[in-house]
Amino acid sequence: MDPAAASRIAVVGPDPQGLLAAAVTAAGAAPGPVREARGLVWAGGRAAALRELLTGAAVEWVQLPSAGVEDHAPAMQEHPDVVWTSAKGIYGPAVAEHALALLLALRRRVDVHAAARRWTPEAGGAPLVGSRDLVTVLGGGGIAVSLARLLAPFDIRLHVVRRDASGGFPAPHERLYGQGDLAAACTGARAVVVTLPLTDRTRGVVDAAVLRRLAPGAVLVNVGRGAVVDRAALLSLLDSGHLAGAGLDVTDPEPLPEDDPLWRHPRCLITSHTANPDTWRRQQLADLVRRNTARFLAGQELLSRVDPAAAY
Amino acid sequence: MDPAAASRIAVVGPDPQGLLAAAVTAAGAAPGPVREARGLVWAGGRAAALRELLTGAAVEWVQLPSAGVEDHAPAMQEHPDVVWTSAKGIYGPAVAEHALALLLALRRRVDVHAAARRWTPEAGGAPLVGSRDLVTVLGGGGIAVSLARLLAPFDIRLHVVRRDASGGFPAPHERLYGQGDLAAACTGARAVVVTLPLTDRTRGVVDAAVLRRLAPGAVLVNVGRGAVVDRAALLSLLDSGHLAGAGLDVTDPEPLPEDDPLWRHPRCLITSHTANPDTWRRQQLADLVRRNTARFLAGQELLSRVDPAAAY
Repeated sequence: MDPAAASRIAVVGPDPQGLLAAAVTAAGAAPGPVREARGLVWAGGRAAALRELLTGAAVEWVQLPSAGVEDHAPAMQEHPDVVWTSAKGIYGPAVAEHALALLLALRRRVDVHAAARRWTPEAGGAPLVGSRDLVTVLGGGGIAVSLARLLAPFDIRLHVVRRDASGGFPAPHERLYGQGDLAAACTGARAVVVTLPLTDRTRGVVDAAVLRRLAPGAVLVNVGRGAVVDRAALLSLLDSGHLAGAGLDVTDPEPLPEDDPLWRHPRCLITSHTANPDTWRRQQLADLVRRNTARFLAGQELLSRVDPAAAY
Repeated sequence: MDPAAASRIAVVGPDPQGLLAAAVTAAGAAPGPVREARGLVWAGGRAAALRELLTGAAVEWVQLPSAGVEDHAPAMQEHPDVVWTSAKGIYGPAVAEHALALLLALRRRVDVHAAARRWTPEAGGAPLVGSRDLVTVLGGGGIAVSLARLLAPFDIRLHVVRRDASGGFPAPHERLYGQGDLAAACTGARAVVVTLPLTDRTRGVVDAAVLRRLAPGAVLVNVGRGAVVDRAALLSLLDSGHLAGAGLDVTDPEPLPEDDPLWRHPRCLITSHTANPDTWRRQQLADLVRRNTARFLAGQELLSRVDPAAAY
């Protein structure tokens, strides 16, 4: 192997701005074709295409562009000696911040004020800080951890629900629940924030029974996946006023059709899946690729390493 | 003095909900007329009326309802042996939270999304968390301290400008400036948050020269007083796009007339002086009155005590 090949990393997939190739170069590696490369940065595309590409290749490391990597489970099983890294952890803070922006917007009625064209002090708002209100976060992953850290100075009570409570939760919170206790965790909550991915276990799990457990006048924020929330229940409880507002970055389906009643619902604030904006996401991924390439060349442990057995 | 008189506190002024009288009673005191009372809770009104009321009274303690108490300086001078307490400190967190809500709304374009009636992912947004962006806070009082605490988990750079930098700043920040270095403190900032009261020294201090020092695309949030910001400069730099947005809880004048161009400016978000909503403010004041009454009866040090010499 010639000296250049020792630092050769292939960047494959749609990377219109060349950010990922630039990141690889900035870390001291030489971009090159897959068949000559020791590492592969997959910029996105069909999982089957990546699987084909790896047939006959001799890469030691594959960097994936997303946090969820379940589509690549077959390739991981075929190449157990390859080190797989994902983007897990790098998008959590921005999505958590967006959830906080929506939560504060609903509490302080920023959306109502934004639509006003005259002085409307009567629209008021309800401060969250210092309220000791119960906020329940559904999900125990990177978004939830980041959100708990952002909420730490607010002097509220935070309940967290994750699939398996025995795993603990590494950020400030009052109480951790397993998924079986979801309804109990939501009882009396003034806000619920959904950060859950969509799986067979989470589809429709925020249903009428759960929403009715919230305190009257509670707000719901969803930055996970739209279909985790039962749509009919959400609309019904917004209409009745039991829910004072919903901040939805995700919907079901996406894009949400223009004739969907959620668009004109006075208690509904929709942000078109921008919790993790494209431009910012590309920059974050490029930054991770630069750091992981440098670590790879130096023989160091890589960041955001995937456990191939768990495909996470 | 009979036993009841020993715990007699007068509550005077407009308090339609009786919250303050209830707070006094809850703390174990007996509401009564001023001439028989050991303490006086002033629920608001003309400073001259309070001054008259104190003539001939023998109260040992006066609780004022606002954070700023400059109007009561003459009464304080006339009654130097009275312990004066204000509401300083109790409203800071809510106003700071409102500033954060506006800052995040502008960064994440919540106002633009709130107005949309179709899927608009292209409206995007710019995460603040983890950006290392410079945010400059004008003012070093309770609002600024609370805001610095709320921003602590965001991994940004925070500059604080207060009248006298030698006073220090008791919350996380990168650098503290005196008012003379205001322009330097704003240079390159991606956001500026105004928390200043209106005085001869602060009127119009955020002028075109200061705003031009901000980074292109910066946002301005004002939760202090409207006239601190030069209105013509603000409009001009919003029009040019140098400022990406303004979140104004305060304006000059208030209420802002319906024909004011700020109402329809696409980069301007106005929240009608609701950073400290009436209902919440009354509750916070009642909570302070309850705690201070209990402390007064127990002979303990009172909260939010005013230095009569400084009238603050």
